[in-house]
Amino acid sequence: MKLIRFGAIGQEKPGVILNDKKYDVSAFGEDYTEQFFETDGVARLAAFIKDKQLPEVADSVRLGSPIVRPSKIVCIGLNYADHAKETNAPLPPEPVIFMKATTAIVGPNDNIVIPKNSVKTDWEVELAVVIGKKASYVDEADAMNYVAGYVLHNDVSEREFQLERNGTWDKGKGCDTFAPLGPFLATPDEIADPHNLRLWLKVNGKILQDGTTSNFIFNLPHLISYTSQFMTLLPGDIISTGTPAGVGLGMKPPFYLKPGDVVELGIDGLGESKQNVVAYA
Amino acid sequence: MKLIRFGAIGQEKPGVILNDKKYDVSAFGEDYTEQFFETDGVARLAAFIKDKQLPEVADSVRLGSPIVRPSKIVCIGLNYADHAKETNAPLPPEPVIFMKATTAIVGPNDNIVIPKNSVKTDWEVELAVVIGKKASYVDEADAMNYVAGYVLHNDVSEREFQLERNGTWDKGKGCDTFAPLGPFLATPDEIADPHNLRLWLKVNGKILQDGTTSNFIFNLPHLISYTSQFMTLLPGDIISTGTPAGVGLGMKPPFYLKPGDVVELGIDGLGESKQNVVAYA
Repeated sequence: MKLIRFGAIGQEKPGVILNDKKYDVSAFGEDYTEQFFETDGVARLAAFIKDKQLPEVADSVRLGSPIVRPSKIVCIGLNYADHAKETNAPLPPEPVIFMKATTAIVGPNDNIVIPKNSVKTDWEVELAVVIGKKASYVDEADAMNYVAGYVLHNDVSEREFQLERNGTWDKGKGCDTFAPLGPFLATPDEIADPHNLRLWLKVNGKILQDGTTSNFIFNLPHLISYTSQFMTLLPGDIISTGTPAGVGLGMKPPFYLKPGDVVELGIDGLGESKQNVVAYA
Repeated sequence: MKLIRFGAIGQEKPGVILNDKKYDVSAFGEDYTEQFFETDGVARLAAFIKDKQLPEVADSVRLGSPIVRPSKIVCIGLNYADHAKETNAPLPPEPVIFMKATTAIVGPNDNIVIPKNSVKTDWEVELAVVIGKKASYVDEADAMNYVAGYVLHNDVSEREFQLERNGTWDKGKGCDTFAPLGPFLATPDEIADPHNLRLWLKVNGKILQDGTTSNFIFNLPHLISYTSQFMTLLPGDIISTGTPAGVGLGMKPPFYLKPGDVVELGIDGLGESKQNVVAYA
């Protein structure tokens, strides 16, 4: 199943994509919240829509994040060797974890707003995993049973805030609009092998990131199990699994986003998103 | 006003403390959520309880966190010179920010659970500020208008996870039970000067931290304004303002919590809390 949320900012309704068409499932009576995932919402929704005539939604509708704001976004740093190398970081002996403020979440095609006083706003195409049930001290062998689905994520990052302003990476990761999510959440049955997905990102039409999740340093069972040793993951929580090479910080010389730029990204089976870059107004 | 939440874990009801007695305000019909603070809930609640006979609650009742799980907990690192010194960290030129998973929140007198494989679970008494309205790019001069209240917080920290396990501090800050909050939220009118509060912490009856918020490196207006440059703070969000000297990491030699230990802490005007330390079971 492919879950979407659509409509004006802050007023999104739940929907699904079936045969490339978008449908409204507001009649189901639930949004895609922690409680939805916790109570086996995906299976209940599938049963609800079966053989039902659903109202179709215009393809041009604005999409929001396909899930309601979760309790947390945990991000994995440096999970592709080529990206670690381009940023002059050593290969991590165990996963790097940081957190992204959930207030950063926007829809997949909303604007990226360059924060005030920012000169180093950068892009990062990532595979985000949405957790389906409460996860604490999960074994690797069991970890994939905790996945509710997958989402395309642009882990937008302000490199000066992240690396030069004293403190942890979090300072450069949680600015408003820094987490475009979507277009849709794909349930695990939609993705044959999450460890073999091409992911790419273009800025102004030029391809800058072109990687594959087969190059993960730490695979999904390890990341889910590992993260769950340090904190409990709740249904709807996100683990964003790191980005391959090709970010602005890694360019020689580095370059960053400016107002007017257009960022496009995609992952096999998870669709594409497109953000216009604007100045803070 | 002093806000509490009481009852069994996960089933807390809202209450208030009046003249040192606890009262149930469930009849108000709202819990202390983002929406409560966003819609001027404190003033509405004050009007609601005026001249009303409220059901009294047994003083022995379990207390939960005085606010419902917020969108985020932002913590400030190294905001007291003596604590920076004891941990061999340089004085920060600007505030250190990190994040604490909100799944760490527990009631003020709940157990601290030492995580599996932890050998360095440490304590940190802190003044936590609860945000009252959406805060983005707030001016220092206006910052105190964004405060809904103050809460006693033990920013429990696993030093190996935080400092020796690769990645940001977040890894050692968000374990379950690592954020005992309360006993109550005190609204700003209850606290004459938040920059002149004694805060202390004992382990097994021995006082180990004894500081004052007058020794902040960065004061509250600066912290609120500063944090709001990097992320939007929502009503109910927490900024925890750092800890004074006297943590286990700073002892010579360092020592840490073990099952059976008892931690007590307090801040002038914000009450006291007490946590028993237990092993993960």
